[in-house]
Amino acid sequence: MTAEIIDGKAFAARVRGQVAEQVARLKADHGITPGLAVVLVGEDPASQVYVRSKGKQTVEVGMNSFEHKLPADVSRYDLFALIDRLNADPAVNGILVQFPVPDHLSEAEIVARIDPAKDVDGLHIENAGLLASGQKAMVSCTPLGCLMMLRDRLGDLSGLDAVVIGRSNLVGKPMAQLLLRDSCTVTVAHSRTRDLPGVVRRADIVVAAVGRPRFVPGDWIKPGATVIDVGINRLPHEEDGGKGKLVGDVDFDSAVRVAGAITPVPGGVGPMTIACLLANTLTATCRVNGLDEPEGLTA
Amino acid sequence: MTAEIIDGKAFAARVRGQVAEQVARLKADHGITPGLAVVLVGEDPASQVYVRSKGKQTVEVGMNSFEHKLPADVSRYDLFALIDRLNADPAVNGILVQFPVPDHLSEAEIVARIDPAKDVDGLHIENAGLLASGQKAMVSCTPLGCLMMLRDRLGDLSGLDAVVIGRSNLVGKPMAQLLLRDSCTVTVAHSRTRDLPGVVRRADIVVAAVGRPRFVPGDWIKPGATVIDVGINRLPHEEDGGKGKLVGDVDFDSAVRVAGAITPVPGGVGPMTIACLLANTLTATCRVNGLDEPEGLTA
Repeated sequence: MTAEIIDGKAFAARVRGQVAEQVARLKADHGITPGLAVVLVGEDPASQVYVRSKGKQTVEVGMNSFEHKLPADVSRYDLFALIDRLNADPAVNGILVQFPVPDHLSEAEIVARIDPAKDVDGLHIENAGLLASGQKAMVSCTPLGCLMMLRDRLGDLSGLDAVVIGRSNLVGKPMAQLLLRDSCTVTVAHSRTRDLPGVVRRADIVVAAVGRPRFVPGDWIKPGATVIDVGINRLPHEEDGGKGKLVGDVDFDSAVRVAGAITPVPGGVGPMTIACLLANTLTATCRVNGLDEPEGLTA
Repeated sequence: MTAEIIDGKAFAARVRGQVAEQVARLKADHGITPGLAVVLVGEDPASQVYVRSKGKQTVEVGMNSFEHKLPADVSRYDLFALIDRLNADPAVNGILVQFPVPDHLSEAEIVARIDPAKDVDGLHIENAGLLASGQKAMVSCTPLGCLMMLRDRLGDLSGLDAVVIGRSNLVGKPMAQLLLRDSCTVTVAHSRTRDLPGVVRRADIVVAAVGRPRFVPGDWIKPGATVIDVGINRLPHEEDGGKGKLVGDVDFDSAVRVAGAITPVPGGVGPMTIACLLANTLTATCRVNGLDEPEGLTA
């Protein structure tokens, strides 16, 4: 048996297509164009690439993209003044400050300053609280993308045994909340878990988010399970003939022979992140305007 | 084998003793007396009894107790004005509005109005978010009490398999967060769980919070497990010769023969609630004054 390989690139393109369709309808029916503001502090090359890519995709789905570039030594005061302006600006429905920021700024303070309703990264404590209590929240993009893929593959998740490996605030914990909301029986496993192979072997759904290359071997996977690999680990050059290859938290080559479906790395969960950011911006726009949530694009 | 029966009354008295000791130290060292404000709307007899009991225990541990009784037809405006005054009052460290409130008032709105730092019931969305992201929160009293009992019985919980049956915002979900924070491998099971007996049988720690009388039989319990029964169900009179006996979510008579330790109903988790409310009020007082957290009384 060989697993279906879930094509994250194609899936993300489909999500962007759905977003574009609903943005067009918003414009036509209500004269509303969603807007996403991205704030970049300093000149980190990787961040610049990422911000450019976000801006491009934002415009492609028909939204307004607002880019704010601040010098690396911008004061906390000036950054907060900008966030306050974006919070107050009705043309801005989503605000994202690109991390990491220089050391003199606090990411926690920045997140706390953003209006939770515009927090399209789903990082604000209020959104964590809304998610934890089963209310409408902005959900962080990576777990939202994983959920979309799982629903697409499995339909109704109710009653399935799901194991989330890793308990980070960014992925593991919100992922567990989302699976619980969809009525899975959810187990959160982590570095202190005693019999991790045994725990994983019980699962119909495995979400690996530990950040350790090829940590989950195929013989931990229950035959037919759906495996979502959130890890993106760059192998040391020595191990890989100098290329520094990207691998996931799951040992793909052995897992693909056991699982029912699996996301590859790269090309699995990764491409979903920006697509979900756009979906969240659309959701935020609908909510602030008292319109129905965009179908199929929310938790 | 017969389980140790965890005496919740004695445990709660011990917690109140610890609170009283630390309150006395706060007074002596810093001239600070913690204050708990309880707001009662209307004249529900059960609520009156409960509020009286809270007031009495608050004074017994050396704290100030402030009781505010409002008529059943109090306006939302007047209730909020009171909450705002309590939020602003430095003598008040904890605020509790006794639920249920009359139908014209919204419990969600009331909770949202309370300063999260004074939300000693741990109901505010911000506290849910802080808990969900592993930060210092006000934790709702029942799960906090369960955690204290588990730590007392088991010491370090790290690596233990814990199953929480039930996913309510008040008990199941915060309980799961607390167990995860203490590094248990945590499974949340619920009405949609397919093989509940199998899931429960794996657990070193079982927390039952489903609200169904004697729902968990002894043969679901792993020998030696610690069983915390949060349920308080009154049996219909017919089934019980007219007394309307209180029973838990666990079938005590069969479970006590298998478990290593178990809380009875009544006299288990129940008595811990007010003790934890007092502990939370002390914690809130320490935090707002920039003092160390009270030892052994927080999550």
